Formats: sequence, C-alpha cells, structure tokens
Amino acid sequence: MTTPLAVIILAAGKGTRMKSDLHKVLHPIAGRPMLLHLIDSLNRAGASRRVVVVGASGEQVEAAVAATGVEIAWQREQLGTAHAALQAKEALADFDGIAIVCFGDTPLLATDTVARLAARLEAADAPTVAVLGFRPADTRAYGRVIADADGTIRKMVEYKDAGADERAVDLCNSGVTAVRTRDLWRLLEAVGNDNAAGEYYLPDVVTLAIAGGGRAVAIETGEDEVAGINSRGELAAVEAGWQAARRARAMADGATLIAPDTVWFSHDTVLGRDVVIEPNVVFGPGVSVADGVVIHAFSHIEGATIGAHAEVGPYARLRPGATLGTKSKVGNFVEIKKAVLGEGAKVNHLSYIGDAEVGAKANIGAGTITCNYDGFFKYRTQIGAGAFIGSNSALVAPVSVGDGAIVAAGSVLTKDVEAGALALVRPPQVAKPGWAIRFRETMAARKRQH
Amino acid sequence: MTTPLAVIILAAGKGTRMKSDLHKVLHPIAGRPMLLHLIDSLNRAGASRRVVVVGASGEQVEAAVAATGVEIAWQREQLGTAHAALQAKEALADFDGIAIVCFGDTPLLATDTVARLAARLEAADAPTVAVLGFRPADTRAYGRVIADADGTIRKMVEYKDAGADERAVDLCNSGVTAVRTRDLWRLLEAVGNDNAAGEYYLPDVVTLAIAGGGRAVAIETGEDEVAGINSRGELAAVEAGWQAARRARAMADGATLIAPDTVWFSHDTVLGRDVVIEPNVVFGPGVSVADGVVIHAFSHIEGATIGAHAEVGPYARLRPGATLGTKSKVGNFVEIKKAVLGEGAKVNHLSYIGDAEVGAKANIGAGTITCNYDGFFKYRTQIGAGAFIGSNSALVAPVSVGDGAIVAAGSVLTKDVEAGALALVRPPQVAKPGWAIRFRETMAARKRQH
Amino acid sequence: MTTPLAVIILAAGKGTRMKSDLHKVLHPIAGRPMLLHLIDSLNRAGASRRVVVVGASGEQVEAAVAATGVEIAWQREQLGTAHAALQAKEALADFDGIAIVCFGDTPLLATDTVARLAARLEAADAPTVAVLGFRPADTRAYGRVIADADGTIRKMVEYKDAGADERAVDLCNSGVTAVRTRDLWRLLEAVGNDNAAGEYYLPDVVTLAIAGGGRAVAIETGEDEVAGINSRGELAAVEAGWQAARRARAMADGATLIAPDTVWFSHDTVLGRDVVIEPNVVFGPGVSVADGVVIHAFSHIEGATIGAHAEVGPYARLRPGATLGTKSKVGNFVEIKKAVLGEGAKVNHLSYIGDAEVGAKANIGAGTITCNYDGFFKYRTQIGAGAFIGSNSALVAPVSVGDGAIVAAGSVLTKDVEAGALALVRPPQVAKPGWAIRFRETMAARKRQH
Repeated sequence: MTTPLAVIILAAGKGTRMKSDLHKVLHPIAGRPMLLHLIDSLNRAGASRRVVVVGASGEQVEAAVAATGVEIAWQREQLGTAHAALQAKEALADFDGIAIVCFGDTPLLATDTVARLAARLEAADAPTVAVLGFRPADTRAYGRVIADADGTIRKMVEYKDAGADERAVDLCNSGVTAVRTRDLWRLLEAVGNDNAAGEYYLPDVVTLAIAGGGRAVAIETGEDEVAGINSRGELAAVEAGWQAARRARAMADGATLIAPDTVWFSHDTVLGRDVVIEPNVVFGPGVSVADGVVIHAFSHIEGATIGAHAEVGPYARLRPGATLGTKSKVGNFVEIKKAVLGEGAKVNHLSYIGDAEVGAKANIGAGTITCNYDGFFKYRTQIGAGAFIGSNSALVAPVSVGDGAIVAAGSVLTKDVEAGALALVRPPQVAKPGWAIRFRETMAARKRQH
Repeated sequence: MTTPLAVIILAAGKGTRMKSDLHKVLHPIAGRPMLLHLIDSLNRAGASRRVVVVGASGEQVEAAVAATGVEIAWQREQLGTAHAALQAKEALADFDGIAIVCFGDTPLLATDTVARLAARLEAADAPTVAVLGFRPADTRAYGRVIADADGTIRKMVEYKDAGADERAVDLCNSGVTAVRTRDLWRLLEAVGNDNAAGEYYLPDVVTLAIAGGGRAVAIETGEDEVAGINSRGELAAVEAGWQAARRARAMADGATLIAPDTVWFSHDTVLGRDVVIEPNVVFGPGVSVADGVVIHAFSHIEGATIGAHAEVGPYARLRPGATLGTKSKVGNFVEIKKAVLGEGAKVNHLSYIGDAEVGAKANIGAGTITCNYDGFFKYRTQIGAGAFIGSNSALVAPVSVGDGAIVAAGSVLTKDVEAGALALVRPPQVAKPGWAIRFRETMAARKRQH
Repeated sequence: MTTPLAVIILAAGKGTRMKSDLHKVLHPIAGRPMLLHLIDSLNRAGASRRVVVVGASGEQVEAAVAATGVEIAWQREQLGTAHAALQAKEALADFDGIAIVCFGDTPLLATDTVARLAARLEAADAPTVAVLGFRPADTRAYGRVIADADGTIRKMVEYKDAGADERAVDLCNSGVTAVRTRDLWRLLEAVGNDNAAGEYYLPDVVTLAIAGGGRAVAIETGEDEVAGINSRGELAAVEAGWQAARRARAMADGATLIAPDTVWFSHDTVLGRDVVIEPNVVFGPGVSVADGVVIHAFSHIEGATIGAHAEVGPYARLRPGATLGTKSKVGNFVEIKKAVLGEGAKVNHLSYIGDAEVGAKANIGAGTITCNYDGFFKYRTQIGAGAFIGSNSALVAPVSVGDGAIVAAGSVLTKDVEAGALALVRPPQVAKPGWAIRFRETMAARKRQH
C-alpha cells in the first residue's frame, strides 16, 4: 500500500447484553482483550493511525490502549454509527488517506481482509466507498447489499425496509467500510437521521456516495471474521473458534495434543517440536516451551519458560518467572514462581518454590517450602548444584544451601549451609509406650458420653 | 389451576440396562437424583399429591423421597404400565381432581408442559383424557397418536400393530397422560391384557375413553423433555443437555465462562454478575458465588459461599462449610472445609484449613495444616485478624492465634498465641561440614556393589 | 482359518507431516504405540508371522517390537509400496500360506476385517488377490476400485489416471491386500516402475494378477478402519474416536461417567460395575478399578489397583504400584506410589506416600510425607493397622509405626514406634509477647524508605 491507512474503531456501544461492569471490547479472547486482537490485526494491515471511538465506560478503554499509541475519540451521546465515526474527525484532522471504519466487538477481522479492502480504494477503478459484505448461514435481520456480479453496489437496504426480493439476497453488510478521508467527513456530515430510531446510520454513506455520482463496491469475506460479540455466549463461541484454530496449528507444527479440545492456549504461547501435551492443560500469557517437553495433565502454566526435554506435571503450576532448565522436572502439586531450575533439577512433589535459584541436578524433596515472604518483603533462596533438600523442609529466606549439601528431612532452615555439609534441625524423638492405647480408651469413653 | 392436581410417577421398572445396584430413578443429574428433578418440576406445576409407584429396589426410592412428602405405592408384579398406575389408587382414595401419570426416568418433563396438560382438563371443552405427544427426529418403534389437526385423538396404535400409513405419522406417544381421578380408576380397571406380552398397557385408557363416548386430545412438547433414561449413555446425554442449558443461562446472566463445555454445575449453583470461571471447574451442591469472583482452572467447589471479588484457585478445593469473605484468596492445592475466611484473608498455597476461623487480612503461609482431628473429635482453630502464619506450620487444635500475631515458619503450635506476639517452635540448626561429601562417597560405593 | 497367515506391515514411510523425531507408527493411541494396536488386531485375526518393513528410523520400530516376536525387514530405499512389501520375502522365505499387506499407520484395522480378507482366499472360489476397499465420505484423490456387484475387480485406477466415469466410482482402495505367498513374490517382482514417480506400486499386483488370467476381488469395510494417520491432527482424531468408543463401552458395562467426553482411558483400563467417574479423570496404563469405586474429578491414575468401594480424589494421583484396599480413601493433592493401603485406610489430604505399607483403618494426617529416598536408595515405610499419623509429619524411611500407634503432629520420625505407643518429636513452644507489633513497626518503616 502506498496510501496511508487510518482505522476508526467504533466502541461506544453499551454492550448491555454482556451484563458486565467491564467494557465489552475489553473482554478477553485467549487472555487478551478483544480490542487488542483487532488492533494487532489492523496494525499488521498497515494502519498508521488508529482511533477508537468510545462512549460509556470509555475511560476503561482509554486505559487499556494507553501503551499502544491508539487515539481515543469520545461519542458523548449515542446517535448512531455514522455519528460515532464522525467523532474521529478531529483526531484525524491532519490525516489524508484511506480510512476504514470497523467495530471493536469483531476481533477476528483478518489482516488480509483489511488490506484487500484498503487496496480496493487504490485500484485504477477505485470506487468512492468499499464495503465488506458476507454471506451468513442465517441472514437473519442483517442489512442487505444489493450488488452486481462485479461487486458494484446498487443499493444498501435495511432488513426492515427490504422487500421480499431484497430479503432473498444473501449478501449482508458487515458495516466495515472504507472511504478516503477526503470523502469520508463530508459523507458522514451529510447523513441524516430521518428514520424510526432517529439515528445516523453508517450505511447511508454508501447511499449518499452513489447519489452523488460516485461508485460503491462490495468485497466479501467469511462470516466468522465479522461475527460481532454481543453476549458472553458469543464471546465463548469466538474463544472456542480461536482455540480450535490454535490447536490445529500446534499439531501441524509438530506438537502432540492427546486431547486437543482440552488444551487452552494463550494468545502468545510458543511451542517447540515434539512437545507432548496431555489432556487438560491451561496456558496463561507469556509461556515458551522448548522441543521435546512433556506436559502432563492438569497443568496450569503462565509466564514460564520451559527448557528442552523438561517434564512438567501432572498438576504443576508454573507462575510468572518460572524458568525450567533442560531436562528438569516439576511434578505434582508443585508451584513454581520467579524461580530458576537448573538443568536436570527436580521438584517432584507438593512443594512451593518461589524467589529461588535451584542448581543443576539439585533434588528438592516432597513438601519443601521456600518461606520467601515475611509480610513485608520477599527474599531469595539459593540452592546449589547437586544439593539434596530432605522432605518437608522449610527454607526461611534469605538463605542459601551450597553445592552438594544435604538438608535433613523436616528441617526449618534459617542459616546458610555450606557446600558439602549436612544441615540438621531436629529434636529428639520421644516414645511413650502404651500411651495411644490409653488415649483411645479415654476418648472412646468420652465419645460414648456424647 | 383450581382443580387439585395429583401425579402418579411410575418407577417400578427394573432398569436392567443401567447395570447398577442403584435404582434407575436415583441416578443423579447435576448431582441430584433424576426423580427429584422430576418431582421439583411437578411441584412447581402445582401438584399437591405425589405418588411414586415402585417395584424392585423400591425401598431405595422410599428412602430417597422420605423427606419430601411423596407417597409410595408398590407394584409387586410387573404387569404393565396401566397396572402400575392403578397401584396408586389406594394412596389417592381420598383425592378428587386431575391425575397425571408420568415416568420416573424422564426427569426433564417441564413444569409448563405439566401445567398445560392439566389445564387442558379444566378447559370448557375438556376431554376425558389428555395425552402428551412429541415428534422425535427418529420415530423408531414409538406408539403413534393418530389425531386431528385440533388434537382430537382418533386412535392410539402400538408400533408393531401400525400399518404403513400409521407408521408415517410422526406424532408419538410419550405415555404421559392426564385424566380426572373420577375417570382414571375405572378406565385403568377396564384395561385388559389380551396382548402378546400379557401386560396391561396405559395407552389403552385412551382407547377405552374414546370407545366409551369420551374424547381424548393430544398436546405436544419437544422430544428432549420426554426422552427416557434407560442406560448410562442416555444418562450422560441428559446430563450434557442439562449442563449446556445451565451454562448458557450463566453466560446470559453475566458470567464469563472461558470454556463453557468444561464447567460442570450442580442443580443449585448460584452465580453473581461478572463472575469469571476459567476452564475445568466442577461445582458440587450448595455453592453460592458473589459478584466479581474469579474462579481459576481446576477448582472443585461444593457447599461453599464465596464473597464478592474473592479469588479462588487454580486447584482450589472448597468443601462444605467453606465461607470466603470479600476479596479473600484461596490459592493452589488448598483445601478449605468448615472454615470462615475473613475479608481479604489469604491462603495461597498447599494448605488444609478445616474447622477454623481466619480473621480479616490474615495471611496463611504455604504448607499450613490445621490439625483438627485426634481420631475421635474435631477441634477448632482460631486465627485473628492480620495474623501471619509462617509456612509449613501445623496448628494443633484447639488453638488460637491472636490478632496480628506471627507464627514462625515450621512451628507445631499447641498453645495459644496472644495478640501481637511471636510464637516460635524451633530447635537449633546443626551443621556437619563435609558430611554430605562423605555420605555420597559411601553410598556411591554401596550402589556400585548392588 | 486353516491356511497359515502372515502379515506384512509397511512402515518405511518418513511420516514427514508428523514433524517428529519419533517414528510415525510409534506415536501412541490410548497410551500404546499405534503399531502395537495394529499388531494386537492382526494377532487376534490369527497371524502367525508378522513382518514390519521399516526404513528411516527403523531402529526405533525394531526396539519397540523387540518383545513381541515381530520380525523386521529393511527397505533401504523408498521405491514404492510394492518394493517395500517385497523386502519381506527373505523373512518369509520359509512361509507358505496367505500374506496380507497392510500399513503401520492404520491402527484401527479390525480383527474381523483381516479375518474376512484372509478367509476370502480360502473360499471355494478363491481369487488370486483380495483387496480391501472402502467408500469414504470424501473420495478425494484415492485410487478407485472398478468392480462388479459381486466384488470382482475389473480395474484398479489411480486417481490421476481416472476418467470422469471412474472418478464417479466411490469404492476406493485402502491398499490392504491379501495374496497367497506362492503368488505374492512373483507378482511383486513383476511390478514395474514406469510411472511419473518412478515407484513400484502395490496395486499393480492386482492388475498383473488379472492380466495373468487370475481373478481379483474387493471386500469392503468402513472408512474409520482404514483411515491412515499422517499428521498429529489425524492422530488426535483417531485418539478421539478410540476414546469415544471406549467411554460408550464403559457406560454400557455399568459405569457412570458424568461427563464422558472428559474421561481419558488407557488401552488396558479395567472398570468394575457401579463405578462412578466424575469429570476430568485421566487413566494411564495398567489400571484396574473394582466395583462401586468413586473416582472424583481431576484424578490421574496409572499402574494402580483400586479395591471395591474405595474413594479416590478429587486431585488424587495414583502412580504405578498403588494398591488401594476395599473402602480405602485417597483424597485431594495426594500422591501414592508403590504403596499398599489396607482396607478402610485413609490418606485424605496433601500427602506423599511412596514405598510404603499402610495397615487397615490407619489414618494418615494431612501433609504427611514418606521420606523414601536418600539420593541413592529407596527405603520402605511400614504403618500398622489402626495407626494414626498426625498432620505434617515426615516419616524417614526405613521406619515402622506399630499397630494402633499414634505419631504426634509435626513429627519427623526417624526411629520405629512400637504398637500402641505415642511418638513425639516436638520442641517447646516459645512466646515473645509484643514481638510481632514491634516487627511490623520496624518493617513498615523500612518499607516506607524503599
């Protein structure tokens, strides 16, 4: 593309059917707000300017896009889609190029489709307006696009105004519309509100362009891309579609998903080759998995980097900052947070390892807890290469265990242990013969009295 | 409805295909026996009397409905559905009104359908008998209802006796039948067993009513409502249908289910608005979730009350009596039972908190266990507001920790701790330099000898 | 069958689309390499000789079948399926009977189908060649079998060489081919490679047989059986089909699967009657579950034997060697490995029990860890009948606790406890009044300085 591209994203709708305090366009798909999925797609299509038009709860949207360079325009009153688009005029006052109006609640709009739509306005026979149409399985009450075989639009017609012949047309209007800014603002300003709802409708731009001697064309895309999300049910359906596509890609790239439908990816999950993922694994954001890793069932992984041929789970919870070395192992009921495990290190059972470094081939026994927090600050635990931490130990940070050292089972470690040493915190075992027998007799008697 | 309504629920079948020692009608849907789902629906339709006709294993049914006011009638021999319905005569000897005969293995029969059927017998043009018909996708070997457009039944015909024309009729008999009791008993008593199986069939009531100059009408409902459960496969299918409907309702009401198909509700789950439920969450009975709660993946929740904006899981197990305060947090591999967590209290990792009260903003470290049982009695643990329990501690109940007190990591607490105090149970740490090196040499040598 | 049967399994393909270092035919279905599923099926059909023809990574296959008596033939160059089959000649030099050529990547080929194909060559009107055809929903580019109504083949035609009439034929060639060895080798040797790819194609055997005056016939089977696995997506689809069939069988046999789609069986799982399985349960190999067992959600079970009426989970992990007695209980976040639990024994919460025997009715408190490993050897823990292990205890093996003994909470047990005794390892509790208040003041001040 040689002409600059701006996008105007309409997001001023109330989203009432979501029944949510969170703005509709901020509900996430694959762990990322749907609006940001859309913006990613628009960016890849070459949009140099992005304006989101917001209304109620607009400040939530403003905060969410703060870091993205996206501009905000406010629509104070809800007077229709043409009116909403017009609110971007001020922000784009200095912009001359192609503008595409689209919708914050259709996050699956593809980069390629946006690019095709923009390119249509750069062609030798460029029309004034290009509209994105689709042919849904169920045309319902969508507005219809009455067009010639070459895409030239004869008429845009709302469903309620359409005759039987027009309703029989299955090309529907997605609302996504491309116009050069030199035409857009005057067309939007010419739109009237002489209709039942008293609203300014975006499709009228097409009608006005044609009436003014211009040409309008439709290009088409699939229904999936332009399906709007208006309820949590539709949100779940889009999520499901996204996940299905991601799982297929993971398998095509060389990962085994034993039960693909039970694996939930994040928008940014990175998987190596010959990764095996058992049923019921959930990925949060920020996960990278190297070649040959096996992730067992019921694992929950976010913000983690997993080295080659590591083994994770079942029931492993890796939290942000977990970095697992090559061939390391994190087993069941284990939580790892901000901790680095060296090559071949093992934390197999029932442990919490946070704010720690664990050396290569160290073995952390079952029930080990790093006590990393005193209610005010977090402290680090260092465990040396080849160290062995006996089961049920508590390591009170800051503390370090040297290379090859051994900590006896059940120790509460408060002082550093030097390399090669044994650390032992253990009072003597006391026996009271017959005590259990007498205790049971007493308690059984008491229970009978209850 | 002004006429009293009684329902006769047939549940004397052997349910052989279930291959179960549990009576068929007691197999649960959404954690509640299917029979009780049906009874709930009938109650809401206004049934003032409910009689369940039981046969083999009938005492299981008797026990299951003991608390519901439902009456039991016994069918000692399995002589057919008309014979079964007749067994309710004695129980309803003092009843004069409308009776509806239905089936214990069709738990999805809707309140509205039952009410429509009963109302049909109260209309100005009330027939003698009203039958519930349905038009299944696959009509299979169902008995057909040959009826006029207005529902007036001309003939009831068993599949095996039906001609080709009759088999082409797709209105099938669900068996659910409404008759005023003043007609019911005489009709049932007039039913004969002159057929191949030698059984008394309920649809003959219709034939007899028409033959006697009465009128019979069919009303219709959907196939899903009257699908009987005869195998565990069908049980699972009904469960799946129930869950799908419940999930859709949850989303419509303003909860986000990231992966709806992986969330399993109980019959009585209550969800607030803006609740977010991650994949793979299982609800048992008795759960109430307030607004803004986030339930992370792999959580298992029963008998729990979760306060607003609390955060649960992943891998949280809440058991009966768990009461979580506003903004409290229960994290991974944590089990809570009969325990109250105050506002903002946190139990983040690998803990068992049972028979306890935890004050507001208290922080329970990883690996904390309340030792609430001595093999005979259960004892309570009290933890004050703002208290801090160090990791890997065991609190031997009965014991109390005062407000703002601190328990050092690894303590086994047997005595109360006063407010603001530190409690410490910790022997000195002993170091044996070089011990680990010598140990490894010895063991490696021994291993070589093996 | 009276004629000996040999099978030649072609497995020399590179399986490039799997993108895997693991040989395609070794990717597992239900926890067992697909090749072994196929070999099981062929064995049941009576195959007395089995030759797998391998190429790249063939040594992986050789290792995988080492214990099965299957022979290996090498195809050093990939010159086509006829050439591959011919590589089995040497191995079968001493064999005279029927040979069936099939494919290592179609693991669902049914025993009955193989038997039918072989039997066709024993019939009175036995043809020279019998070919297995199928009628796929989408015939795609499969080679077509042009046959009479009685199955007599007129022509085998590759898709690319087929005319419109031939493409309209929906009987496709699965490639599975039966020929008596007395004919097979000469036919294979007569196959030429005068085609675009320069390859020796197995279907040419049919053409040659007919040209030589012999007869060839097609028998048919369902598409599912002969669907080859060429990608991880297809692997997952076959796994899903296998699981769906297994779940249906489990329910038909009398197990309740509340959410069948979320239960994953292994190839060898054995289930009793009236077993209830909650959502999200994963079975690894070697599991046997007796009657009346309840397996709660999120359990992961492999190599375990579960006694009648035991209760498992939620979140139970049973590993190889776990043997659970009648009415025993393993609760949440508990791992059991190489351990026997006596009748009615309970391990309810957050424990690791490995290399242990737990007596009848013993009660293992929350957070108990058997310390079974010193970095070199594993040691056993013995817990007597009726013993009570207090919470958060570490049992340092080798160690034994006698019948009815009690171990106090938080103990690190290093010495044996005699029957009926109390064992206690517990230093005194120290109180520092006001310490927590001063600590908080100090830390809060320090935090302000940060």
